[in-house]
Amino acid sequence: MARAIQVIGIEGLPEVRPGDDLVALLLGALAAEGLALEDGDILVLTQKIVSKAEGRLISLSEIEPSAFACLVAHQMGRDPRLIEVILREARRIVRMDRQVLLVETPHGFVCANAGVDRSNVGEGRVALLPRDPDASARTIRHEIQRRAGVEVAVLITDTFGRPWREGLTEVAIGVAGLAPLKDYRGQRDRFGVPLQATVVAVADELACAAGLLMEKLAGIPAAIIRGYGYEPKEGTASALVRPPERDLFR
Amino acid sequence: MARAIQVIGIEGLPEVRPGDDLVALLLGALAAEGLALEDGDILVLTQKIVSKAEGRLISLSEIEPSAFACLVAHQMGRDPRLIEVILREARRIVRMDRQVLLVETPHGFVCANAGVDRSNVGEGRVALLPRDPDASARTIRHEIQRRAGVEVAVLITDTFGRPWREGLTEVAIGVAGLAPLKDYRGQRDRFGVPLQATVVAVADELACAAGLLMEKLAGIPAAIIRGYGYEPKEGTASALVRPPERDLFR
Repeated sequence: MARAIQVIGIEGLPEVRPGDDLVALLLGALAAEGLALEDGDILVLTQKIVSKAEGRLISLSEIEPSAFACLVAHQMGRDPRLIEVILREARRIVRMDRQVLLVETPHGFVCANAGVDRSNVGEGRVALLPRDPDASARTIRHEIQRRAGVEVAVLITDTFGRPWREGLTEVAIGVAGLAPLKDYRGQRDRFGVPLQATVVAVADELACAAGLLMEKLAGIPAAIIRGYGYEPKEGTASALVRPPERDLFR
Repeated sequence: MARAIQVIGIEGLPEVRPGDDLVALLLGALAAEGLALEDGDILVLTQKIVSKAEGRLISLSEIEPSAFACLVAHQMGRDPRLIEVILREARRIVRMDRQVLLVETPHGFVCANAGVDRSNVGEGRVALLPRDPDASARTIRHEIQRRAGVEVAVLITDTFGRPWREGLTEVAIGVAGLAPLKDYRGQRDRFGVPLQATVVAVADELACAAGLLMEKLAGIPAAIIRGYGYEPKEGTASALVRPPERDLFR
């Protein structure tokens, strides 16, 4: 039998609101589809529904932009209140050029607009990244274990750009229950030659696999990946963040 | 029924040699597993087997390193002949620092070592990227259509690093039969707010999904992705290469 992985979209979730019990909504949506989580599944959630459940939403009407935010907004032709929110969610500006505001978030992620996003949250509002996406993933994992009695790994993902390549891809910003990196260094290939510099970001590859179904307009904010033999581990998305001393693009 | 995608590993391929009929080997390996390609499948192949079939292999013993290659190799503690091959496969050096030789290839891809790779090709040899991976993908797609009578898309992939994030992920370097980018710009979210800057690199997400099975040591150099509704198009991996005027990291 060939090795195979399944990616299953979770549909039918209602609009998630601050304070909602996301695990209950997910288990309910799965049950309504006749699906159930199984031991060894990876549950992948878009950042947006986690942020909504955690109340990480801001109305731009409540924001008083700073002088610097106004200046940047003017240069970029953007809303000063949005720029203000982005700056508050950033700890370092990596590039500010040609409509792009690329920052490092407090988590260490380098992404456009600090992950602040206007889509699917309603006019005049923006969603922020979860404050601690690893903790969010851990809580969801434990609640699923407690309520459904299954051992799953959980990934929380967002859609990031990258240098040199067009198009965004999904990346893991929160990890619980699996090792996000797979390290082949020191192992030998089939000719006996040692593998070099081969550490694979499996959490990001899993995020991309789920991203194929979790499309912006498809109403699928979560997915199950079944059949991938991951290494069980507490896990953290910070393992995916390159430390400054190894970063050639600061 | 929930929307689902399957990723199926293709096992049992023999060691591929220069001049081998890769399509015949693939169809044979599938038949031996009781599998068959279906219309709408995406066939994903690692660069390595394509390069091997195309004879893109070099014995380092045949290489005479230049003075510059010797200098760089000395600084990095690496084999001058390997550095010479990398420089011959590059059209621009993007970064040369701390053991990393990051170059732009003639195709426009920015990657470490110009994609020149020692793994799984035997001691003293290296594999180069296919000269024209889009053409390789197109040929394979047409041969499958001709011999098996099915309409599939073909991706050729390699494993690249990226700034700011640890770990390598799979990317598409050759595309045939699908649109590598999915453009949501101008569409509206469920609240009626226009989506901005949302172009998704589906070819790279597909590459990552396949990469979960096409592991370095698993003996799975190819995979089928089934159930993903791609946009049929001639396709080219050059659409995934950011043009210089949009590149903030030259």
